Amino acid sequence: MVFMRFRPQLIFSSLPRAIPKPRTPPAATLAAAAARRRHHSTAVATSMAAPSEDALRRALAERQAAVDAQAEAVRTLKAGGGASKAQVDAAVEALKALKIDAGATARRLQQAVGAGAGGGGAAREELRQAVVNALERKLFYIPSFKIYRGVAGLYDYGPPGCRVKANVLSLWRQHFVLGENMLEVDCPCVTPEIVLKASGHVEKFTDLMVKDEKTGTCYRADHLLKDFCKEKLEKDLTLPQEKADEFKRILAILDDLSPEELGAKIKEYGIVAPDTKNPLSDPYPFNLMFQTSIGPTGLSVGYMRPETAQGIFVNFKDLYYYNGQKLPFAAAQIGRAFRNEISPRQGLLRVREFTLAEIEHFVDPEDKSHPKFVDVADLEFLMFPRELQLSGESAKLMKLGDAVSKGTVNNETLGYFIGRVYLFLILLGIDKGRLRFRQHLPNEMAHYAADCWDAEIECSYGWIECVGIADRSAYDLRAHSEKSGVPLVAHEKFSKPREVEKLVIVPSKKDLGLAFKGSQKMVLEALEAMSEKEALEMKAALETKGETNFNVCTLGKDVVITKKMVSISMEKKLEHQRVFTPSVIEPSFGIGRIIYCLFEHSFYTRPSKSEEEQLNVFRFPPLVAPIKCTVFPLVKNQEFDDAAKVIAKSLTTAGISHIIDTTAISIGRRYARTDEIGVPFAVTVDSPTNVTIRERDSKEQIRVDISEVAYVVKQLTEGQSTWADVSAKYPAHVGPQGDQE
Amino acid sequence: MVFMRFRPQLIFSSLPRAIPKPRTPPAATLAAAAARRRHHSTAVATSMAAPSEDALRRALAERQAAVDAQAEAVRTLKAGGGASKAQVDAAVEALKALKIDAGATARRLQQAVGAGAGGGGAAREELRQAVVNALERKLFYIPSFKIYRGVAGLYDYGPPGCRVKANVLSLWRQHFVLGENMLEVDCPCVTPEIVLKASGHVEKFTDLMVKDEKTGTCYRADHLLKDFCKEKLEKDLTLPQEKADEFKRILAILDDLSPEELGAKIKEYGIVAPDTKNPLSDPYPFNLMFQTSIGPTGLSVGYMRPETAQGIFVNFKDLYYYNGQKLPFAAAQIGRAFRNEISPRQGLLRVREFTLAEIEHFVDPEDKSHPKFVDVADLEFLMFPRELQLSGESAKLMKLGDAVSKGTVNNETLGYFIGRVYLFLILLGIDKGRLRFRQHLPNEMAHYAADCWDAEIECSYGWIECVGIADRSAYDLRAHSEKSGVPLVAHEKFSKPREVEKLVIVPSKKDLGLAFKGSQKMVLEALEAMSEKEALEMKAALETKGETNFNVCTLGKDVVITKKMVSISMEKKLEHQRVFTPSVIEPSFGIGRIIYCLFEHSFYTRPSKSEEEQLNVFRFPPLVAPIKCTVFPLVKNQEFDDAAKVIAKSLTTAGISHIIDTTAISIGRRYARTDEIGVPFAVTVDSPTNVTIRERDSKEQIRVDISEVAYVVKQLTEGQSTWADVSAKYPAHVGPQGDQE
Repeated sequence: MVFMRFRPQLIFSSLPRAIPKPRTPPAATLAAAAARRRHHSTAVATSMAAPSEDALRRALAERQAAVDAQAEAVRTLKAGGGASKAQVDAAVEALKALKIDAGATARRLQQAVGAGAGGGGAAREELRQAVVNALERKLFYIPSFKIYRGVAGLYDYGPPGCRVKANVLSLWRQHFVLGENMLEVDCPCVTPEIVLKASGHVEKFTDLMVKDEKTGTCYRADHLLKDFCKEKLEKDLTLPQEKADEFKRILAILDDLSPEELGAKIKEYGIVAPDTKNPLSDPYPFNLMFQTSIGPTGLSVGYMRPETAQGIFVNFKDLYYYNGQKLPFAAAQIGRAFRNEISPRQGLLRVREFTLAEIEHFVDPEDKSHPKFVDVADLEFLMFPRELQLSGESAKLMKLGDAVSKGTVNNETLGYFIGRVYLFLILLGIDKGRLRFRQHLPNEMAHYAADCWDAEIECSYGWIECVGIADRSAYDLRAHSEKSGVPLVAHEKFSKPREVEKLVIVPSKKDLGLAFKGSQKMVLEALEAMSEKEALEMKAALETKGETNFNVCTLGKDVVITKKMVSISMEKKLEHQRVFTPSVIEPSFGIGRIIYCLFEHSFYTRPSKSEEEQLNVFRFPPLVAPIKCTVFPLVKNQEFDDAAKVIAKSLTTAGISHIIDTTAISIGRRYARTDEIGVPFAVTVDSPTNVTIRERDSKEQIRVDISEVAYVVKQLTEGQSTWADVSAKYPAHVGPQGDQE
Repeated sequence: MVFMRFRPQLIFSSLPRAIPKPRTPPAATLAAAAARRRHHSTAVATSMAAPSEDALRRALAERQAAVDAQAEAVRTLKAGGGASKAQVDAAVEALKALKIDAGATARRLQQAVGAGAGGGGAAREELRQAVVNALERKLFYIPSFKIYRGVAGLYDYGPPGCRVKANVLSLWRQHFVLGENMLEVDCPCVTPEIVLKASGHVEKFTDLMVKDEKTGTCYRADHLLKDFCKEKLEKDLTLPQEKADEFKRILAILDDLSPEELGAKIKEYGIVAPDTKNPLSDPYPFNLMFQTSIGPTGLSVGYMRPETAQGIFVNFKDLYYYNGQKLPFAAAQIGRAFRNEISPRQGLLRVREFTLAEIEHFVDPEDKSHPKFVDVADLEFLMFPRELQLSGESAKLMKLGDAVSKGTVNNETLGYFIGRVYLFLILLGIDKGRLRFRQHLPNEMAHYAADCWDAEIECSYGWIECVGIADRSAYDLRAHSEKSGVPLVAHEKFSKPREVEKLVIVPSKKDLGLAFKGSQKMVLEALEAMSEKEALEMKAALETKGETNFNVCTLGKDVVITKKMVSISMEKKLEHQRVFTPSVIEPSFGIGRIIYCLFEHSFYTRPSKSEEEQLNVFRFPPLVAPIKCTVFPLVKNQEFDDAAKVIAKSLTTAGISHIIDTTAISIGRRYARTDEIGVPFAVTVDSPTNVTIRERDSKEQIRVDISEVAYVVKQLTEGQSTWADVSAKYPAHVGPQGDQE
């Protein structure tokens, strides 16, 4: 399993970028297993939640047995006729007490199961429903092509969602591309087959699928098995312990199952098509890329890219030259990626088209230090290294500097990006208590990867992989070098030439030809391909015995090599530079997932003034908020309208997104309307010269001169001032304007 | 031809969005013609360039005839033997003079042909080559998948190009979305077939293709015919006048030719495959959309969207409600669009994947005034209304306000967007002398369109459509209403209800049933479907004669209707609102084309200091420049390096993209290197406290204190100060730093 080559990062972009032939287990099994190793975090979490649940399950089984025994006793007492009424009553009371006890245990078990990661949980479902309703009502997003009844897994961002997305991407550019002087590129989505053959996607980017044998409806095989096991564990409280353990084991190894094993389990449990109850086909791999054809001939296969990273790798050579042939440097790309999910679920988290922001940081494999690591070394946040996961513990607060110095995180550069990702997510408004960095377990990781960490954000769906940060070593550049024949390498010029000993093998074509005739070429190639050790052994043998046996595997036999057929020597050479394939450290951001988690983390409700209803609020930080500011004339009045227009114009000039709301509804209603889309500041025009600015979450108001409004709002929304700063500077307003009706 | 329904806008996104059945000409001919009506502007321009060229062609033919006659005379003189040497010499001299004269005319003709729009022209080719070399060398763009030998029509933006694109899009958002409070949406590229059937793309978004009959290589049929005609016109100077006229006529009507006509011309002229000289197939339509399959069943056809507009139309209902059910409002979308070109040419101008920015402004068809039109009414720029095109004149300077008031531009809203587009393009740095707004000719325009104007920018490829601004009336919303069954309409509530007379037709089912039995339903439906006129005639007939003949087309015969079978009356009703389909005014921006033209307009060369070479400069405005500022320590020195780091940090904080260049080459070389990617300002650190800032185009320098550098550069790059402002404020620097080695 150690040689499993897999690329697990974002659930939707996690993929076996390349799964070369493994050395021990049969390729097909491994490939399929790797290709489906996507829910690993969920699976692990499920198996982690065990201890108290197991105990409860045992306790429940005991209590249920006691109830059954007592019920039997009661029946016996009643049937025998010999027992007094008092005896029977006492026995019935005892039975009732046992039932109450069993019932309580069942409820506790139910709770324990519900609270387990990945489980629904009524509170989570309720939160999700409230958030999703608020988002849909205000067009943060819209199921795409809704008037044509939509397409599963495709969503539009409506006006406020689209602005949030643009703000998140703009912050990303500021924080990463500008902040780190990265080289940003912008490549097409349509990608020719050869590129994705080199990356391994054409062969391995698959999920296992089963078909309803009568209707042809398709399902993800692992989803059906997972649902079956979870349903049993959650709903069937009387499940025998050994069965419960079996289902948990399956959930934990779900992604490692071969198509045959998966098919066997589906048969064994009698799992049928959920919609029709029809039997299912055997599982078979389905490639998740959208295929198309480039040009008019129909002969040139293309795919919609499943990730943006390949566009960077194929440009490595040009980018390296652009960067003055210096390492390290990073390239970045923001763009659409596509994945033809078999049956998309989990709303905005698993979609067929999504925005990725990816960074490929190219670095000398012999020096992964980072000059700016010191800037992030003191950050402290939840980390979940593999040791804690394997020992059943929880994530814990760690200092990044310690994690790197203790070797928990493989190297400084990887650590630096973990720190920068943390800062970015916090800047957006992600709750740091619901953010952790989880290290990949050994069997999750590609054999070539040095280390991998996922930024996971907790939301109503459980812990969700939102950013993957992987040290992928030289794998990707090598794959494209091999396929394209273009060397994707870097050079280190030595300050003074270094003397190195080099093996030199010079076969004598003439003598080989005379001895081996038609087989000459194979022998020659085998000689040239000898390792240093083999060559030195041969050299010794030839010097002592004059000849030696030599196995030519392309001929499938040994031949005799004599001294004159080959000259072998170690020569001293001066080397002026080192040529090597750079390692790549890849932070990869699922923008849509981050935004969805941000929606959940930003959402809260508070009672209206009359306390008759709960009002929705999104507490977006000003930088992220879709609209920074609303302008309300307090009452319909020419003077106020004119003042509002003056303010709006100054806001436009300052580049601050805003809306004027002149509807004739109460100011409280209008505030509630802006809270619902997370507008952080509201300007109420209650005088032609001097207005109030209200902060969304505190509902505090200050009074500001009209001419200063745009300046104050700009300072607040661009982060130069906090609300505390401006409250200290401007007078508070405690006026008659009602808030939150 | 008036009923031709076509959507000609951006060349690469121009398309027959829907080509319903025309009333007179055969559908196939029209559809094909419309589908290829893309080069109209070129075609028109070619036919416009005629007068002096025609005269030269006639003059050349006369001179050539004179040369031939004189040559014959010389031969006769020589052959006869009776002529003196002096006579022969004189005749030969005369022949020489005639030849010189003919040669000069041929050169003038050559020039006239070359200068014609669409023609290459050596100077244009040279400019293009210089720009393209500069762009490729600095990775403004890169042919995609270059290490795999690329794919025609796909390009990456490299680091500076990617930043220019991001800046252009950010300005677009600022200028249009924020400036006009538009509702921006973000929809998927993968689009189900039904949406593109409704829009007409599945049926009509085609080009005519011919195949090399032996190798299968595909060509655009119209391109081959166009190339043939242009080649003849440009290279064959002895072309008889009638032939030249014929080729010009073909170029002008190229887009109107049916597949049969196109095929016939290809046969007539003996046009063969350019690469192999093999014969060609007949032309047939090829759909330009990239097709794919959504979901795993393979049964659900999808396409990569050919434009972003449809995503807005299908969301009209939600957006209208979001906007408080008020008109007008605009929605916008920036995104990728795809077009599987048969054989892409013209480099960055005709590509298979590109970024569009589209606006759909929904407006009451009865009121297309615009409250902010006054803000743009005084703008004056080159306009090319259809009258000028048809009379062979050139574009001329017009005031936008006059163009609208005289009816040249159909309405204020369309005029307003023309003005805003003009301001946007000028803001980016497009040369106003090479920008014109060309109105579509009647046969270019869809029958439903009220008016259409293209912003055309002149570059080395000729005049290129970069923005289309079309009043598309209610067409798109109606098409999706019909296909989806969801009414996409707006409501106008009347301030007081209006009394209207309405026709009420009430058939008597019982009497119809008795009379017509099984045919009852058809008769009933036909009665209900009567127009007001038909109904009133029937009412009159029934009142006078008691019965009347009535044609039921679904039965294919007349039936007799009696008085008791139907009651027809005009009733007065109070209406509270008007329900209507909004008109849409659509500005659609081809971002890649605008950027390419911007590259050409921004490019110039100037001699190096030694005057030994020409150096490339891009004069991007600071807002567009990929990097705003470079920082150079004058010499390698710890103090200067530290100062450079302080400046860099303050620039990062201020959000200004910059690079530090510490390479040990001369300052002049370093300036030249930044000029080459259009960096507007260079900071040279020649003191630890006080540095110089150099402006790219004037090469002037000022001295600024380190602490003020970021502020000054921010003011300059965000447009709050001009170079003149800061030169007035800070001392000029005339130091020893050499510029441009």
